[in-house]
Amino acid sequence: MKITAGKWIGFCSGVKRAMKLIENLKMGKTIMLGPLIHNQRVVENLEKKGMKITRNIEEIRDGCTVVIPSHGCLREEREDLLNKKINIVDATCPIVRRLQKLTEKLAKEGYKVVIVGDKEHPEVKGVKSYAGENSVVLSDLKEAEKIDGDKIAVVFQTTSSLDSFKVFSSALAYRGKEVRIFNTLCKETVERQKEAVLLAKKNECVIVIGGKNSANTKRIFELCSKVNKMTYHVESANEIDEKWLRGKNFLFITSGTSTPDEVVNEVIEEVKKYENERGEKHGRKEVRSNN
Amino acid sequence: MKITAGKWIGFCSGVKRAMKLIENLKMGKTIMLGPLIHNQRVVENLEKKGMKITRNIEEIRDGCTVVIPSHGCLREEREDLLNKKINIVDATCPIVRRLQKLTEKLAKEGYKVVIVGDKEHPEVKGVKSYAGENSVVLSDLKEAEKIDGDKIAVVFQTTSSLDSFKVFSSALAYRGKEVRIFNTLCKETVERQKEAVLLAKKNECVIVIGGKNSANTKRIFELCSKVNKMTYHVESANEIDEKWLRGKNFLFITSGTSTPDEVVNEVIEEVKKYENERGEKHGRKEVRSNN
Repeated sequence: MKITAGKWIGFCSGVKRAMKLIENLKMGKTIMLGPLIHNQRVVENLEKKGMKITRNIEEIRDGCTVVIPSHGCLREEREDLLNKKINIVDATCPIVRRLQKLTEKLAKEGYKVVIVGDKEHPEVKGVKSYAGENSVVLSDLKEAEKIDGDKIAVVFQTTSSLDSFKVFSSALAYRGKEVRIFNTLCKETVERQKEAVLLAKKNECVIVIGGKNSANTKRIFELCSKVNKMTYHVESANEIDEKWLRGKNFLFITSGTSTPDEVVNEVIEEVKKYENERGEKHGRKEVRSNN
Repeated sequence: MKITAGKWIGFCSGVKRAMKLIENLKMGKTIMLGPLIHNQRVVENLEKKGMKITRNIEEIRDGCTVVIPSHGCLREEREDLLNKKINIVDATCPIVRRLQKLTEKLAKEGYKVVIVGDKEHPEVKGVKSYAGENSVVLSDLKEAEKIDGDKIAVVFQTTSSLDSFKVFSSALAYRGKEVRIFNTLCKETVERQKEAVLLAKKNECVIVIGGKNSANTKRIFELCSKVNKMTYHVESANEIDEKWLRGKNFLFITSGTSTPDEVVNEVIEEVKKYENERGEKHGRKEVRSNN
């Protein structure tokens, strides 16, 4: 079986940066304002090392180190933190931080800010807090019809798909006297999605690795599923079902942006193990990897 | 026959303003920088009174009065005029003038300005001159695919239809890192178009009155034709063909924004004359007008 691993597999640069920032912290005195990244194993490991999680800023005592997660935090939370005698490690993805600043600026200039994304996602909640009262989160295309105003600005959750960017932009473009549309998509995420769709088409079977709570992993899974019905989403190697691989010669493996290389490698090893067993049974051995 | 005349028939406020501005000028010393409005009869009348037309600024001598037409002029022309010892009467429609200033500002702010409209129309040529080099006129939807850039601003010829505004906005919305779309449509024109479509549907026959070179008249004719095949475009009363009215009980009459009330009244009188003749023939008389 030929295993093709995506060029964009594993952590994205924002997640790498977040992991780097916390690398040398004294875990016992460190608090995360929510999960650092959307990967359960990574977060559990940090908790095991002594890092705590809370969103209750009242609980944070002087002298602590507080880590703002990669998805950012609310404006009010950041302001409260700045008023405390603590050490702040800002692991907000720079692309998300730029989006927060953009929406804050647009709101100040009198624009109604429309944020296209998932209402419940911490990135979107944070971005909305910067846009203030005159803003709305849009996740359903039908809601676009309700938007109107003199000055409207449209921004997108950074991990939105290119398709969703196009469809929502088109639907909102004529809904105000002035409509200002920003492509705030993370380029890396778009490239990862493009590659995933392309290679999902070219292979017989697809495994997408990533947290079940990771929005961008779910999006890659959805995009691949549309073009290849043999697409599976796993969080770890032990979820792989032999049946998926039976009789297949071309497998494509990709991951969400918060999936550690370690988990990716475990999945590849698991697939190779199955291949070796199959090879021994049938008296042949043919395992290749592009990675 | 019931004749319904549109609420928005006759001159629009921009044309009324232009006509008012030239009312008391000494025609012999006055030059129009192109036709004041797109109505041949009006322009011919002004010429008969001694007003001249030229676009050659070299020809304009000190002491003259120069009228800038309702569709505006090129930026270079305005600058040249300002350097002369002449009296300038600016009959540019205020909505067009606002659009010129908007595109000038957007170009200064680094936007590539996309003007959706008719390349050959004097309004569009003027607006483009204010946008400068980094601008393009789009009249075909297919051309939208070629547009890209970091900062794009989209504006519309003021007499564009609402449909064309929506379709072009949607097609351009996602073509840049930032796309800023302005609804620069003249509200009065939009209302006139809406009314025309509504009443064209409700009547058996439609007469649209206006210059054959008037873009907005042609647009109203097109919009009405789509919903009522018995739609006719005339420039003057003598073009009316009896056949159009034969057997019809409901007629809707509308006009372009540069059609004088005088011409509208002539058309209504012509229709009534036909009705009277018909009534005498058939021993009945039934002419009503909503106007």
